[in-house]
Amino acid sequence: MLRVKSVDETKNIIKENFSKYHLETEKIKLEEAVGRIIAADVLAPDDIPTFHRSTVDGYAVKSSDTFGSSETLPSQLKLVGEIKMGEKLEILPKEGETLYIPTGGELPENTDAVVMIEYSEDLNDGYIYIHKASAPGNNVVYIGDDAKKGAVIIEKDSVLRPQDIGVLAAMGFSQISVKRKLQIGIISTGDEIIDIDEEPYGSQVRDVNAYAIYGDLIRPSCKPVRYGIVKDTTVEIKNKVQTALKECDILLISGGSSVGIKDETFNVIHSLGSPGVILHGIAVKPGKPTIIGKISEKAIVGLPGHPVSAFVIHHIFVNHLINTMLGIPLKITASIAGTMAVNYPSNNGREEYLPVQFQNESDKMMIYPVFGKSGLISTLSNSQGYIHISRGNEGLNKGDIVEVFLWT
Amino acid sequence: MLRVKSVDETKNIIKENFSKYHLETEKIKLEEAVGRIIAADVLAPDDIPTFHRSTVDGYAVKSSDTFGSSETLPSQLKLVGEIKMGEKLEILPKEGETLYIPTGGELPENTDAVVMIEYSEDLNDGYIYIHKASAPGNNVVYIGDDAKKGAVIIEKDSVLRPQDIGVLAAMGFSQISVKRKLQIGIISTGDEIIDIDEEPYGSQVRDVNAYAIYGDLIRPSCKPVRYGIVKDTTVEIKNKVQTALKECDILLISGGSSVGIKDETFNVIHSLGSPGVILHGIAVKPGKPTIIGKISEKAIVGLPGHPVSAFVIHHIFVNHLINTMLGIPLKITASIAGTMAVNYPSNNGREEYLPVQFQNESDKMMIYPVFGKSGLISTLSNSQGYIHISRGNEGLNKGDIVEVFLWT
Repeated sequence: MLRVKSVDETKNIIKENFSKYHLETEKIKLEEAVGRIIAADVLAPDDIPTFHRSTVDGYAVKSSDTFGSSETLPSQLKLVGEIKMGEKLEILPKEGETLYIPTGGELPENTDAVVMIEYSEDLNDGYIYIHKASAPGNNVVYIGDDAKKGAVIIEKDSVLRPQDIGVLAAMGFSQISVKRKLQIGIISTGDEIIDIDEEPYGSQVRDVNAYAIYGDLIRPSCKPVRYGIVKDTTVEIKNKVQTALKECDILLISGGSSVGIKDETFNVIHSLGSPGVILHGIAVKPGKPTIIGKISEKAIVGLPGHPVSAFVIHHIFVNHLINTMLGIPLKITASIAGTMAVNYPSNNGREEYLPVQFQNESDKMMIYPVFGKSGLISTLSNSQGYIHISRGNEGLNKGDIVEVFLWT
Repeated sequence: MLRVKSVDETKNIIKENFSKYHLETEKIKLEEAVGRIIAADVLAPDDIPTFHRSTVDGYAVKSSDTFGSSETLPSQLKLVGEIKMGEKLEILPKEGETLYIPTGGELPENTDAVVMIEYSEDLNDGYIYIHKASAPGNNVVYIGDDAKKGAVIIEKDSVLRPQDIGVLAAMGFSQISVKRKLQIGIISTGDEIIDIDEEPYGSQVRDVNAYAIYGDLIRPSCKPVRYGIVKDTTVEIKNKVQTALKECDILLISGGSSVGIKDETFNVIHSLGSPGVILHGIAVKPGKPTIIGKISEKAIVGLPGHPVSAFVIHHIFVNHLINTMLGIPLKITASIAGTMAVNYPSNNGREEYLPVQFQNESDKMMIYPVFGKSGLISTLSNSQGYIHISRGNEGLNKGDIVEVFLWT
C-alpha cells in the first residue's frame, strides 16, 4: 500500500504526472474567449496605434513654434483647419500654422505636439494664441507606443481576461486559437446514493457531490459531464469508468474511497492499466482518503464520500490538477485578513483546510470556524471561505491574525 | 450643469435610483444555477438527514451497554447482523446486542451511539468486544442536524455557489426559482471607431471597449448584447439608444462622453425622458467624464472613450450598478497585500484607481504602478489589479504596504 502523502508531495505528484498533458487547440470567436487559454504566443500584427495620436482636445503644433510662449507673451499661430476623427488628413500645416485636433485625432505631419485647449485662446481673428511652451511629444501617443509590430502581446498559457480581449480587438483578431476545453467526468458511487429527483427510502441520500462539483466546473476552460450513479461493485464501477475515460481528460469518482470494505475505486483504478494508482491518501483534514490514478496520461481522482471532504479536496487538489493539465501558471490568490474570534486547537501533524465564516464587528473582521459533525453539508454552505493551517501549527488562538481564502 | 460627484456620492446615487429595480423570476434546472440569484428564501422541505446517521465505520450500540468499558475490561455485545447502505433496517437489536454499521448507515432503533471499529475487537465468536465507553450521540448525526424542516436554507438575494447547489441537491430541488438575467446593451459611438474585422484607414481605431466589456459581462446573471457602432450625431445615437432601451435593463454607451464638442450622449439621455441625466462627472482618476442616466427605471451609462478609463469605470461603477439592480448584498472583496516598489505622487483631491503589477521578490510581494500615456490599452492588459487611493491621500511612498484588488 502507498504511503500517505503531504499536501506538497501531492502537488508535486500532480505536477510530475500531468504537466505535459497535451491539449489540442481550436479557433474560436474573440467574444467567446474570456477564460480560455491561449495556445501560442500572440504577436502584434501591426504597430498600435497605427498613427501618431493626440491624447487631448487642443491644437497640433510644431513645438519649436511655441518656445518661449507664456500668458503675457503668447505665440500667435495661424489656424488653417480642423482634424476630424477617423478621417485621413488632407491639410499639412506649414511653419507658424496650427489645426484644431480632438482627443484621439491623428497628428498632422510637420507637427510634433499638441497644446491643450486650456492653454490656448481663440479670438476669432484667424489665429490661435498659445500660452504655454510645448516640448516634442507633449500630449501625443506615438505609432507603436501600445504595441510594436511583432511583439508578444499575449503569452502562451495566459488565461484570457476581458482586458486581453480588448487588446486583441485593437489588433483586429476576430478569432483566436485557444486550448480546447478539458472534459471532466463525474461518477457517483454508493449503494445508498439516489438522484436528486427521487424520494429517499430508509438510509438513502441524494447525490450532493456530483451536483456541487458539476456546478463548480461550469467555467470557460472546462466541460463537466455527469455519468450518473453506480452501485458499489467493482464490475459496475469498472464498466462506467472505462466508458467515461474514453471521453474525458479527468474523471472524478465521488464516494467509495474511504479505507473500508467498500473500497472498490482503488481496485478499479489499479486494474485499468499502468501506472494506475499513483497516490492513496493525503495527510490533510478533511479529505485523507483521496486517491489519484493515471491511466494512459489521463487522470482519475477518487474523492472522499463526505460532501465537505469531497468539496475541499475538489477545491484544492482537483483545481490544481485542472490548472496543471491546462498549463496555467500558478496564480496568486487573493485573500482577506481577519482576527480569530475563538481558539482553535492543534491538528497534530495533518494540514487542515478549516471552513470559516467572517463577520465585521466594530470594523474588525472576526473569523469563526464553522464547526459541524462530519458529513454535514451545511458546514460548507455556511462558510464563506477557509483557513489553511499548516502541519507544524500548534493551533490558533483567539486574537490571532489569519488569512482567509474565499471559496470563489 | 450637474456638479461632479465623489465616488461615495456616485454609489449613493446608484443605490437611491436603482435598488428597487424589479426583476421577474424564472425556474431553471439546478445544475445551471451557479451564479444565479435566489428570488425568495428557500425553505428545507424535510429534515436533513432524514434518519439518524453514523459518521464512522463501527458498531451501533445502546451506549449504556458500554459504560465502564476499557481495553482491560471490554463489554461483550452479541453481533446480530450488519446494516447495509441505503437499505431500510429490518433487525432491531435488543439489550446487549449490536450490529455492524458503515459510515452513512442508518442507526437502528434501540441504539444511540456508534463505537468506532478501532475501539472494538471481533474474535469471530459471535460477539464484539468494546474497548471504550460510549455516550449517547457519539459518532451520530441526528435527523435534522443538517437542516430542520421549514428552516431557511438559502436566503433571498444569495448568489448561488457550488456548495449551495450541493445543499439544494440534498433537499431534492431539481429546479429552482431565480431572478432572470439582466440584459445589458453595449453601444459604441465615435466617427473614428471601426469593427474589429475592418482595416483602419487614417486615424480610425478598432472597437476595443465593446469587446472588453462584453467579455467581462459574460457571467451567469447577465446577458450582454452588442448593438454595434454608431456615428457621433444626436440623431443616430438617439435612434440606437431607443431601440436598445426597449430590450435592455442597462445600456452602456462607450465613447462620446468627454466634455468636448462631441458630447452627444448627454443630449440624447437628457432628451429621452425624466429624470434623464442623474450624474455628470465623477471625481475619480481615470474616468471623470462619466454620465449616468435613468429613463423609466432603466439605467444608461455613458462611459469615457479611453479604453483604460472605460474599463475602470465599468469595473467599479457598472459592477456596482449591476449588483444594485440584481439586489446582491455588498460583498467582501478579497485582495493581496503588497509593498510599494516605487514612490507614487499625490492625486490632489481626486480618488484614484491605479492599475498595478506585482512581482514576488525574495518573498516580498512588490507592487509596481503600470504607467502609461493616456489611452494605451496595454496599461490594462499589463496590470493584474489595482490600488484604490482615497481622496485625502498625499501619495504613496516606496515601502508602503498597500492593498491590491485583483481584476478578477
